[in-house]
Parts: sequence; C-alpha cells; structure tokens
Amino acid sequence: MKQYFNENEWLIIENAFDPDYNRVSESVMSLGNGHMGIRGNFEEKYSGDSLQGTYYAGIYYPDKTKVGWWKNGYPNFFAKVLNGINFIGIRVHINDLELDIAKCSVSDFKRVLNMQHGYLERSFIVEDKNNNITKVSCKRFLSMYDSKVAAIKYSVTPINYNGKITFSPYLDGKVVNEDSNYDEYFWNEIDKVATDNLCYLTMQTKKMDFRVTCAMKHELLKNGINIDADKNSIIIEDNYVANKVENIISMGEEIILIKYISAVTNRDFNNNELVTKAKEAVNKAKEIGFNRLISKHIEVWEQKWQENDIIIKGDEKAQQGIRFNIFHLNQTYTGKDPRLNIGPKGFTGEKYGGSTYWDTEAYCLPFYLSTAPSELAKNLLIYRYNHLEKAKENAKKLGLKGALYPMVTMNGEECHNEWEITFEEIHRNGAIAYAIYNYVNYTGDKDYLKDYGIEVLVEISRFWADRVNYNKLKDKYMILGVTGPNEYENNVNNNWYTNTIAAWTLDYAIKVIDYINENYKDIYNMISNKIGLNKKEITKWKEIIDKMYYPYIKEEGVFGQQDGYMDKEQILVKDLPEGNLPINKNWSWDRILRSCFIKQADVMQGIYMFNERYDINTIKRNFDFYEPRTVHESSLSPCIYSIIACQLGYKEKAYDLYLRTARLDLDNYNCDTDDGLHITSMAGTWMSIVHGFGGLEVKNNELFLAPFLPKAWKEYSFRVMFRSRIINVCVNDYIKITLVKGKDISVYLYNQKYYLVENNVLEI
Amino acid sequence: MKQYFNENEWLIIENAFDPDYNRVSESVMSLGNGHMGIRGNFEEKYSGDSLQGTYYAGIYYPDKTKVGWWKNGYPNFFAKVLNGINFIGIRVHINDLELDIAKCSVSDFKRVLNMQHGYLERSFIVEDKNNNITKVSCKRFLSMYDSKVAAIKYSVTPINYNGKITFSPYLDGKVVNEDSNYDEYFWNEIDKVATDNLCYLTMQTKKMDFRVTCAMKHELLKNGINIDADKNSIIIEDNYVANKVENIISMGEEIILIKYISAVTNRDFNNNELVTKAKEAVNKAKEIGFNRLISKHIEVWEQKWQENDIIIKGDEKAQQGIRFNIFHLNQTYTGKDPRLNIGPKGFTGEKYGGSTYWDTEAYCLPFYLSTAPSELAKNLLIYRYNHLEKAKENAKKLGLKGALYPMVTMNGEECHNEWEITFEEIHRNGAIAYAIYNYVNYTGDKDYLKDYGIEVLVEISRFWADRVNYNKLKDKYMILGVTGPNEYENNVNNNWYTNTIAAWTLDYAIKVIDYINENYKDIYNMISNKIGLNKKEITKWKEIIDKMYYPYIKEEGVFGQQDGYMDKEQILVKDLPEGNLPINKNWSWDRILRSCFIKQADVMQGIYMFNERYDINTIKRNFDFYEPRTVHESSLSPCIYSIIACQLGYKEKAYDLYLRTARLDLDNYNCDTDDGLHITSMAGTWMSIVHGFGGLEVKNNELFLAPFLPKAWKEYSFRVMFRSRIINVCVNDYIKITLVKGKDISVYLYNQKYYLVENNVLEI
Repeated sequence: MKQYFNENEWLIIENAFDPDYNRVSESVMSLGNGHMGIRGNFEEKYSGDSLQGTYYAGIYYPDKTKVGWWKNGYPNFFAKVLNGINFIGIRVHINDLELDIAKCSVSDFKRVLNMQHGYLERSFIVEDKNNNITKVSCKRFLSMYDSKVAAIKYSVTPINYNGKITFSPYLDGKVVNEDSNYDEYFWNEIDKVATDNLCYLTMQTKKMDFRVTCAMKHELLKNGINIDADKNSIIIEDNYVANKVENIISMGEEIILIKYISAVTNRDFNNNELVTKAKEAVNKAKEIGFNRLISKHIEVWEQKWQENDIIIKGDEKAQQGIRFNIFHLNQTYTGKDPRLNIGPKGFTGEKYGGSTYWDTEAYCLPFYLSTAPSELAKNLLIYRYNHLEKAKENAKKLGLKGALYPMVTMNGEECHNEWEITFEEIHRNGAIAYAIYNYVNYTGDKDYLKDYGIEVLVEISRFWADRVNYNKLKDKYMILGVTGPNEYENNVNNNWYTNTIAAWTLDYAIKVIDYINENYKDIYNMISNKIGLNKKEITKWKEIIDKMYYPYIKEEGVFGQQDGYMDKEQILVKDLPEGNLPINKNWSWDRILRSCFIKQADVMQGIYMFNERYDINTIKRNFDFYEPRTVHESSLSPCIYSIIACQLGYKEKAYDLYLRTARLDLDNYNCDTDDGLHITSMAGTWMSIVHGFGGLEVKNNELFLAPFLPKAWKEYSFRVMFRSRIINVCVNDYIKITLVKGKDISVYLYNQKYYLVENNVLEI
Repeated sequence: MKQYFNENEWLIIENAFDPDYNRVSESVMSLGNGHMGIRGNFEEKYSGDSLQGTYYAGIYYPDKTKVGWWKNGYPNFFAKVLNGINFIGIRVHINDLELDIAKCSVSDFKRVLNMQHGYLERSFIVEDKNNNITKVSCKRFLSMYDSKVAAIKYSVTPINYNGKITFSPYLDGKVVNEDSNYDEYFWNEIDKVATDNLCYLTMQTKKMDFRVTCAMKHELLKNGINIDADKNSIIIEDNYVANKVENIISMGEEIILIKYISAVTNRDFNNNELVTKAKEAVNKAKEIGFNRLISKHIEVWEQKWQENDIIIKGDEKAQQGIRFNIFHLNQTYTGKDPRLNIGPKGFTGEKYGGSTYWDTEAYCLPFYLSTAPSELAKNLLIYRYNHLEKAKENAKKLGLKGALYPMVTMNGEECHNEWEITFEEIHRNGAIAYAIYNYVNYTGDKDYLKDYGIEVLVEISRFWADRVNYNKLKDKYMILGVTGPNEYENNVNNNWYTNTIAAWTLDYAIKVIDYINENYKDIYNMISNKIGLNKKEITKWKEIIDKMYYPYIKEEGVFGQQDGYMDKEQILVKDLPEGNLPINKNWSWDRILRSCFIKQADVMQGIYMFNERYDINTIKRNFDFYEPRTVHESSLSPCIYSIIACQLGYKEKAYDLYLRTARLDLDNYNCDTDDGLHITSMAGTWMSIVHGFGGLEVKNNELFLAPFLPKAWKEYSFRVMFRSRIINVCVNDYIKITLVKGKDISVYLYNQKYYLVENNVLEI
C-alpha cells in the first residue's frame, strides 16, 4: 500500500508526475456520466505507459474464442467491454515540436480530480528540447446535465519565447482493447466529415453493429478574448478526423482551445439520426459555452451530494475515501436508462468483460436505494425484469425449468464461460429475488410486486424447485454441484447460503402470490394465466421449504458452509506464515480450492441478509468461526463482516474491516487499480458506514438506526433518502437526526421511536 | 450406427463414393508409420467436403489463447497438433480440364485400405464435362521400413478419347488447421527448390521453430514402360512447389506417375542437414523403385501380424473390427523414438491437441507389452522418465512436492488448461507409477527399476504424500478436490480410485526401494543421494498408507466412488427415458455433473488394476452396483467392464460390452469418426479379447490364461509376446496353445500348469 495522492476532503491530488504510477492515476482520475466514461488519460500526446480508455455504456463485443473441451449449455460468447472513439485528444505543437511530457522536463505537475464538482484539472510547466518553457493547464468534464456532451478547456502560455502554438483536436476511432486476442480490431469506420468548424466520425462495432458518432467543435481564446486562428486546416485519416489550428503568440500570452464534444450511439437513436443528433448536441454545447455548460454540470453534482454525502470529521483520509467511492458510484450509474447496469469496473477499465454481476443486487442496490429517488433503484430491478425471457432460455439451455439469470451479462444472455461460474454459481438467482424484497421493503412500493416482481419471483422459484434433488435416504431436498459466494470453492454440495436463499425465495414468492391474490384478484388471475401458475407447484415449493437440508457443524455449533467443509485442514488466516497472503497471488488454484480459506462472506452473507432469523449467539458463533478463516480477497467481503461486527459490538474489528475497502483504489491496496476501479465494492464501503456504523435498517416500513462512532473519528454524518425524505444523521458524542426535506416521519433510534419534523433537529 | 464399409477380414472397402460420409472414410483410411501420418484424402483435387490432414510426429504449436478468469498455476499454453506440408497431392488435368470427382460423374468407385500390407488403393471411372471417360487408379503407402519415405502410384487410362494427360505432383505448405482460432496460420516458408527431377520445400512452425523438409521425385510409365514427359515444367508459389508433366496418350493406353516422397524434421536432424537428408532419402527411394519399396514395407507388416494378429472365425465383422484396431495401433506408435507417444487421435485428426494422456499407461501399454518386443513398451516408460524434471516443475507450480505428470502433453509440460482436469485429475500420476509395475511384472525386466523406475516412483510418491491432508476428526488421510477417471464428476473429495492408487503407489515405491537397497546397495546409495531419500519420509508414507481414507457405501456394501455419491438421485441407465443417451450430447454439463451417471470405469478401474486384492463377491457387488450407472461415454470404459464381466462369468454382458468398442470407428458408433479415430481406445478392444475373453494375466513371472469362447464366434486365436516367446492361443470347443517361437516355457491354464515346447501344440 502506498499513499500516493494528497489528502483532501473534496479533491484527489497528484502533486508530481510518476510515470510508473500513471495507470493507477488514470484509473483514479476517471470521469463518467452514466452514458460514457474516460480514464484520466492526457489530452496531448503521451508516449509513456498509459492505458487509453473511452467507454460507451452498453457497447460490447461478443468474443467467441473457445478453449478447452466445450460443454453443452455453454454460452455462445464471452462479452468484452469495448474501448471506443477517443474524443479527448488534442495534439499540441510548440514551434512545430510536439508536446509529449514523456520527452520533456516537467515541473509543477498537478492532476486534480474535483469530486465535489465532477471535473478533472491538470497543470504543469514543461521545458522541451528547444528550451522553450511553456505553461499548460486544462480542465475537462463529461456533462451530468446532458450526458451526450463533454468539454475540455486547454490552455497554453509561452514563458520564455514567442512562437507558434498549434492545436490539433481530434476524434480517433483507431483504438484497440489491450486485452484483445491477437490484437484484434473491433471497429469499422462508417462515416466521417472534417471541416474547419465541425468534425464528426461514426464507427461501427464488428458483429453487433453498435454505432457511435462523435462530433467536435472548438473555439479559441487569446488572453481571454475569442479570436480566429492564424491558420486553419483539417486532417483526415482512416478512422480519424482532426482540425489543425495554428497561432503565433508572444511570451506571456495565454492561448486557450476549448473543445466541445458530443457522443451518441445507436442504442439511443436510429443509425440515420446519429450524425444529426451528434451535430445538434455539439452545436448547442458550443452555443451555451464552456462556463455555463460546466455550471449546469456542477449543479447536478451539488444536488447529488445533497442527497448522498457522508461527512467524516477528524479523519481526512476517511473523508476523502468515502467521497471517492460515492463520487464514482454516481458517475457509473445514473439510473436514467433501464437497459444499463453497473459493471465491476464501471467506465474505468476493460477488465471483467460483461457488465452486470450479482454485485448489483447484493451490494449496489442498497446504496442506490438510500441515495437517490426510488426510480433509480427501480430501474435496476426492471433491468432484470426485461431480461426474464432470456433468463428462461438460459435455464432451458441447462435443461431446467423457470429462469436462471446470467452470472455475467451485457444484454440478458449469459456471457461468461467457465462452468463452475456459469452453471454453478446459481445463488445469484436468489440475490435477484432478494433485491425485489429489499426494494419493496425499503421504498414501500408494493405495486412493484404486481407490476413486475411476481413474474420474476415465480420463474426463479421454478428454477429452484427443479434444481433441488430429493435425497431419499435422508428425506431431504439438496442442492448439489454449486459454487457459493465464496468462489474459493467450486462444485460443492449443499452450500448453506445457496440452500438458504433458495428456500427463502420459494417462501417469499408464496407470500407475494398470496398478497396479490388477496389484494388484486383480477391482476392475480391475469398473471396466473400468463405464467400458468398452479396450486400443485406451490404445494411442492412448500414441501421443499420444509425439507430443505442445511449443513451444520455440530462440534462448532455453526452452519456448515457446505458438505464436507470440516474435512479440510482447519487453519486460521492469522496462523498462515508470512508471504502466503493474498493466497490468490501466492497459491495455485488447486491449493486454494482444497484449503479452508474463504474468499468472501458466504455463510455470513446469508446471516447478513436474513439477519432477523438468527439470535445474537448464533450470529456470534458463526462470525467467530468464519471470520478467522476468511481472507477477504474479494473487495465485496469486508463490508458484510464489518456490518455484522457492528451488530455484535465488535467495534474495533468493524473498523478494521471497514478500512480494508475504504481506500482500496485510492491507495491501490490490492496492487490492481491500474486495471480500473472496483466500482461495485465501493457500494460496500458505503454500506459499512451507513448500515454498519450507522446501524440503518428498514423493518415494517420504519427506519431503524443504531449508530456508534468509531474511535478514530470525531464525528460523522450521512444522508439517506427514505420514502421521499432526505434524512441527515450526525454522530458525535451525541446523535443528531435532521429531516432535511420531506413530510414528518418517525424513526427508531436504538429501537426507541422518535418523530422527525422537517428542518428540526432531533438531538440525543 | 451405420455399416458403411464392406465386411472383409483384411480389407476395409468403400464400394461407392458418398461425399457426405467422406470425412469418416478419410479417418478410417488413414495411413501412418509412427513418424508421420496422412488422412485418406484424395491425391487429385477434390472440391467437396474433406478434412485435409498430414501430421508429423512431435510437431505442435503452443497456443496461448486464454478465456475466463486465469488461475495461478495454469499452463503457459495449450498444445495443438499441427497440420503440416501436404505431400500426397497430384493435380491431374485431362485435356486441360482439372480432374475433380466432385464435378464429374463417377462410377466403379472403390477405396480400399489393405490392413494386411498397409497400403491404400483407390480406383474409379469418371466422365468429365467434356464427356471424356477416364479410368483412374492409385495406390500409396508410408514406409514402415524407412519411415522418412512415402510413395504413390497414380494411373490414368483414357477410355474414349486420345488426349493430353497432365500430372502436377506438388508439395504444399499452405495448410491450415481447421480448429485454429481466426484462421491463424502456423507455418513460415524457409526454403524451396523446384527442378524437373527434384523438388523440395522446408517449412518452419511459428514460435517453436519446428522444421519439416519434404522432397519429391517422380517417374513416368506408359503401358508399364518408363518414358520421359512430352513436356516438363515447374511451378513455384509461396509455400508451394510442383512439377508439371504433360503427355499425349491414346485411348486405352495407361499412363502412370509414381511420386516418391521423403519427409524429415529438425526433431531428427540439424536444420542445416534437412535438405540433404530429404534429398538422400528421396533419391534412394526412387533408386529402389516403387515395387521393391512396397515389398520391404509389406515385410514389416507381415512381421507385425506374426507378432500380434487376432483371428476370429465365424464372425467376419468382429475379425475386421479387431484387425482394424491392431492395424491403427501399429501405425501410430512403433516404439522407435522414446520422445514420441500415442495421441488419442494418432495421425488421423487434429482433435485433442496435445499428444499424450494417461490413456497410454492405462490402456495402450498392455497392448504394446504383449504385441511387440519389450523395448517398445520400455520406450513408452522412458518417455515419462525423460520428463521427470518437467513433472517436478509442474508439481512445484502447484505448490507441491515431488512430481506431477501432466494430464496432456507434447513435451513433458502440461498443455491443457481446465483446472478440473489439469490440477485435479491427478490419478494420472498413479497410472504412470502403475505402468512401471505393469512393465516389470510382464517383462520381468527388474533392472528397469534401478535404472529408471525408482526415481519416478519416489517423486510421484512425494507428490501424493504432500497432496493428502490429514483429517484430525477422523484420524484419516484424505485427498480433497480431485477429478477421478469418471470425468462426469469434477472437484470431488476422496475419489476411491485416486485414494487407492495413491496409497498403492506409496506401497510399491517402498517395495522397490527395499528391493534395490537389498540387491544393489551401491546403486541404492547413489540414487538415494541423488534424490535425497530419507527414512523419515518413508515412515510418513507408511502412516499415510495405514490411515488412508476410503469412502464406503454401507447400504450397498460397495466402495464409494467419492464422498457424497449417494446424495445424488440414484437412477439406472436403463431407466432413463429414450432420447437422453448419450447424455454428453443431450444434457447440459451442469446436469451431468449433478447426476449419478458415470462416464467410464472409476471404482471398477481400481478393481481391474488391483484385482487380486478383492474377493469375487466384493468385485461382483461393485460391478452390479456401478455398471448399471455407467453410460460408457468414454471409449475407454467398456473394455474394463468387459474384462471384469469375464471374471465374474457374465459372458453375455462381457460380449455386449466388447461390441461397444469393437467397431467404434468402423461403424462410426458415436458419430464422431469424422474428427479422426479413437486410437487409444483401440487398445482397450484388444484388451477385451486378450485379457477379457482370453483371461490373460501375468502373476509371479508366470503367464495365466482362462479363455472362454463368446457364443457368436466359432473360434478365435490371439498371439502374444511374452518374455521373448511368441505364444499362440486358439480357443474353440478345445483350447490349443502353441509356442510359436522361443524357449520352452510353462503357462497356467485355468490355474493349472502346463509346459510349452517350441512348435508343439498343447491341446485341451
């Protein structure tokens, strides 16, 4: 671990340029607006090491590469997030010598991510090999107000010379994925135009025919005043368009190029509209101008922070860490498009191919539920509702009834092809059912059940009912051949978590069916006809619930993670000799699989989700048994343990666990931030504070809180949205709860009921 | 199943051309000589469907394609058998119209594989679109006498015209693998020369720099008399050289082109010798001439059949089937090169990439032990001895001591990359130890133990001793996370077969160590120093043997295939509704894994190998339990069950099981012969007859026989080599045993001892 960036409550500051750390900085400094995203690459040429990345939401490539012995039921492709048209580029020439800081002496370098207002700034002074000294600064953002638009302000000031400054802003479709096989190229050029006052470029992906059109315009300012270029020209190459703008300026004068960009895709428009829409958007952006454009963008960010900021006093690193997480979550998913979801790397890298994992339902949903209007979380659920038919096909492919949602997907189809994941990590299906419960529980939006939820719940239940097998000898239902949340075990029998969530799904589905039957007879009949619901299957579900088998470790009085877990050699993580951790870097897969070590919360994931079922001693025994065996090598692990630790009063343990993810990417904890950020686990960090330290729960339509203050902090406060209210919770020696916005509401603090009135502070 | 080829005891006859069946015919009609092999492709152009294939022993490509989430310890590459220079090609033009039977009307087509003498003949009459009727016949072989050499005799006779016949014999390096990703091309041209009387071409593989040089010469005969061509020219293209030989002939005259080919590789010669060696070989071949060349080749075949023919009377199909198997086994491996081994498809197709599987030790070794001088089997063992260092590296990669032989290999390195196979199917290590036992037991060559065997046995034992884990609760050693021979289970705990062979290996290793220590003190000390043998580890091995855990199914009184096998839904194969078999075509992998169905002998494999340990009732209970649950979807399965069935007196069952593999490829039983032949399983068929029906065993240096005659047969006889003797066993109402060659020897027939004298017949 290395603390590279300066501490600051709102800014991520890189104060000197370290080329070896550039990929990490690029990941950290990524910008996104839900529609597209860019890594923190430089605008001007940079010949040093860099992972260039521009990503457009929902655009992927279906890779068909096959390795090993193919198995029946395998998906047709493995999805790849595609690197698309690079629109940030501005080549800069100083007296015809190209600016490239890898080849200059650089001073006063600063790259700053402003999380409060959502932009990236950079400034530096360079001396090139002609001994010309130049001051450069730039600022860019991807608009949260109009997600098609981006803008860059690029400023150059000669310090010790008069001379020619040439800007060549460009759109470059010649991009490749770094992870592609054999340097395969995924884009074809469709259309391009370059004129002095407008350029655009349309690229098309191979196989899927996704199209992206980017357009750009620019303006020039000298010493703050709009000017025309001394010389204007255009450059057209394959998959590439650029302007070339030359000006002679004097020492000390500042010349600024503002580049306005628009990007539209055929996910949103017809192919024949793309150019028109891109032109419209870029024309409007230029009309509005950089300053007003960024003001509107900042307004959106201010609104976001209003809704979901967490303030920590007395620990600036923690403050920076949690804001960094909230910032990137807000950049990744805005909830405007129900066809989109949250990729584990968001718009910050290529890794993990397909976009959607169970991370969304298990880790991200709670964040979005509490930090945005409920439509946003609802869109995440509707994403799955819209994929129901594909999930049914997926189950059918495996010879099973009902619906099996994919483990990894871009469009509803399974797009990961390792059998132990695709075929066996079926607990994800339960998480999708649980998300419906979670959403309805939190928002109170029971209509969701009749409008969407019931169909999903029934089809998932049908899957479970077909996937179990009855064991005559034991008179029990079992679920064989699964991979649980702990991916350090594959193909186990009777993973306790999977069996638990399967039986729970059946039970919840029955309750929802009864609820709709009782309250919306007509709708019930309609749905029941549509999906062919019958009493016999519900009777069967009840039998499965009654006779579900749950492994239990008698000697320890704990739930058994799976059959045979105790046959493994029992070693605790703390007793591992130095140099073994992380085991995923130091051990062979074979050794990991045979060991007792747990990658991420598995039994504890179930205890977290179905917490109210277990008495505190049971929870304690399980935590005390499993936590010492857990290596937390998934970034999704510590938050769950941390929340349970809070519940058990293990305050220091809870804080230690929280620390493992709080600054995971900011401090490059796992040495892999160069690949991109761990977006989905960021929601887990938020959960550690709000659900863990804050003790937030929703039960019977009421908000419960049970906060404590970690020793290292003086105070913290968080804001949550709950049933159209914004509630601020401030924890110090005292606790202050403020209803910032919305109608009066009651809350439970340490199980005691209090009433909140708008703008009144409740202090305890 | 379809009986496509005519029945004949020595020939495989295709009597009319079926283009849709051509790939199957090509596989069946493959020729090989241990050094190289070719599928039954046509010499002249054929624009219809065909899998063109020329393979050179030991030449492969290390494919680095990766899919899914990479795991530590994975191999660096996946080996691909490469399709190499096509040397059989002869383009034929009739009055300048190219002969292509896909575009002509064809009659009297005949393609015949002569198994007795090892050549392929073809003849047909074509009428082309110019209405020229032509008779064509050809004959080719790959010399078993000089494995660098091949020859083709290609004859053309105009039936209804006078005209120009043009032959263009060529060497073509522009070949691709059908299974390559993105049509990747694996060969570079290094050198080529074409003259009127000699052409050669050297190609080099990418990455590995394997080189192959082919040279060719030809001669022309008109009506049996050598002639010169009317016109001679050469053709040189990229990766391609050819002669062009034109002659005007009259109706009814026969013109023959004889093409002599040599092929050498830099596995046998230095790069700078290749051309010289290829020229030498082809010059010599032409000098000797086609007729003498084929005579020498036939002599070798006659010798082979002397040693290992099986004669079946009263069932021509069975006769043809078993000879087909023996023929292809002899073509695939000749034992001359200890760097070579037996690929599951031999030289008949691309599938299965790497060349060597545990098939060699478990299934092929018994065949070669009994059918060839013992040096041949010894070379198979030395192949593994030579790879010991790589097997140690492989174990180390997984974090384990000792040696883990690869599951699939070309050069000693693991070259398959599915964790459940590579990391977990470790029972292969036991088969390699067992092969040493098997070889020494059969041949009596105890010197092998001190010269080679002990090091391999010790390192494999060290692997097992490190791979087990001690279970305190049960006071037992366990082997977790394995895949047994039944690949329809992955990542199971305590596979009975694996635990059995692991403990057996430790025990055998200790016995071998003691034997060498007692008999060759000096050698013992030398080896013991070399490999750092110490008493402590042997004590540990003894403890593991004593406390090894073996799953047992109490209710059934049988060994448990693995922990938890009885938790599966217990269904018998016979109770599966129609349309489910084969499950590997009809079921998803997920369903297969969860089912109780067994792909191939697993517990029974152990009972077969360690037969003397178990009383007949135990064997019976296990057979009766496991056989009805076995789908035999590995071609390696039925032979093992068939042999045990013989032992149990289940004669009809034994014969039924035998039939499942006897004509597997000849009748395209599994509908996959188009990909190539199942070479390694052919040895299993041989075992079914000799070890099963014949009851052949070797115990305490004595040969035991216990033959019975299947109902469907009138008589059968087989020849085996045993301790430098050739023994013929003929089974009818009587049994005749003849010592065909070698010193007097005793044999046991139904456990009764008899003495054999050379050329005397023992009749019982």
